[in-house]
Amino acid sequence: MKKNGNIATPVILRMPRYYRCVDELYQSNCVRVSSNTLAARLGLTASQIRQDFSCFGEFGQQGYGYNVKKLHSEIQEILGINEGHKAIVVGCGNLARALIKNFDFKKCGFELIAVFDADPALIGTELDGYLVRDVADMEEYVRTMKPDAAVLTVPTHVAHDSAEALVKAGIRGIWNFTNCDLSISDPSVRIENVVLLDSLLTLSYRLSEDN
Amino acid sequence: MKKNGNIATPVILRMPRYYRCVDELYQSNCVRVSSNTLAARLGLTASQIRQDFSCFGEFGQQGYGYNVKKLHSEIQEILGINEGHKAIVVGCGNLARALIKNFDFKKCGFELIAVFDADPALIGTELDGYLVRDVADMEEYVRTMKPDAAVLTVPTHVAHDSAEALVKAGIRGIWNFTNCDLSISDPSVRIENVVLLDSLLTLSYRLSEDN
Repeated sequence: MKKNGNIATPVILRMPRYYRCVDELYQSNCVRVSSNTLAARLGLTASQIRQDFSCFGEFGQQGYGYNVKKLHSEIQEILGINEGHKAIVVGCGNLARALIKNFDFKKCGFELIAVFDADPALIGTELDGYLVRDVADMEEYVRTMKPDAAVLTVPTHVAHDSAEALVKAGIRGIWNFTNCDLSISDPSVRIENVVLLDSLLTLSYRLSEDN
Repeated sequence: MKKNGNIATPVILRMPRYYRCVDELYQSNCVRVSSNTLAARLGLTASQIRQDFSCFGEFGQQGYGYNVKKLHSEIQEILGINEGHKAIVVGCGNLARALIKNFDFKKCGFELIAVFDADPALIGTELDGYLVRDVADMEEYVRTMKPDAAVLTVPTHVAHDSAEALVKAGIRGIWNFTNCDLSISDPSVRIENVVLLDSLLTLSYRLSEDN
């Protein structure tokens, strides 16, 4: 059902929210859902939702709504959740440890296969079941094991070099937590930034609007 | 220089990136910068940057560029960085601990004044210089100390109730890490979501586009 084509970015950015909503319905054994119900839960309009879904083909049936199980698996397919993506973590600071211990990588279809750090005191220790590997072995590991993505949680001053090394070794995606705008020479590498500074600065702006 | 008005959301969302870039220049004692240089650093066009800044008044001088110190302080003012915002952390799991220990709240103009948790084993202990307070005392604390924002890092199943309690007690902003879309009855409360699931799902989508 997946349409390979030019799906507009705002549509793509709404798909994960749709997935979370439909996943909740699916987990609670809901069988059928209307676009009106989805709209009410998501604070969007029903026509917006129907229009977004129509970019990927036809899932619903007029007057019946959506079969939740089918919709769930269609959105999983759209998002690539069942493609067996593999990821590594580079940099084992507090944030990385929080992600390794608590974040549901599986729910996003990612398997965490290795973690790396530069600190001799950490290398060789175990972290939530993962052996912390020497970052000096990272490129060789990426070449051999071919993970799809790296969770980049290294300090700012080594962010660019780490990213370039990963890309050189063949990584295809970077989940970037470094608060740096990475400029990567290979435009085919997908970068998803989580810039916490920007997020809190946006809240600051919104708070100051009131004054 | 700040214009109170209807600034378009995309402009607002670019301001934190501008701030990070100008802050780097400022910290490295750069005196003057052209919109062309800013554009090259940010991967935007010079006219886009000039247009964005013009929403907030006139900072630059034709043919001279921007005075970095002045631009820095103007953007700080726009973003409300100098307004002395106070924040509390609600929920002291791994992610919260990572934020408390490593995140530069000060850079965003926030002072962290208290942290709360529901776990009796944590309450009364010290966390990076903060006494972990009983979440049962949270509403009273918010009413008395009037923090502007709460960093919400509680488990999903208590996310809505915690948010409503905070809002009832007078909180004005929520930095929401719960992976829940909070629906708050008071529309004046500012919510800034950091939905890590959505971010990694977006990366998954982008990776699967290649296949």
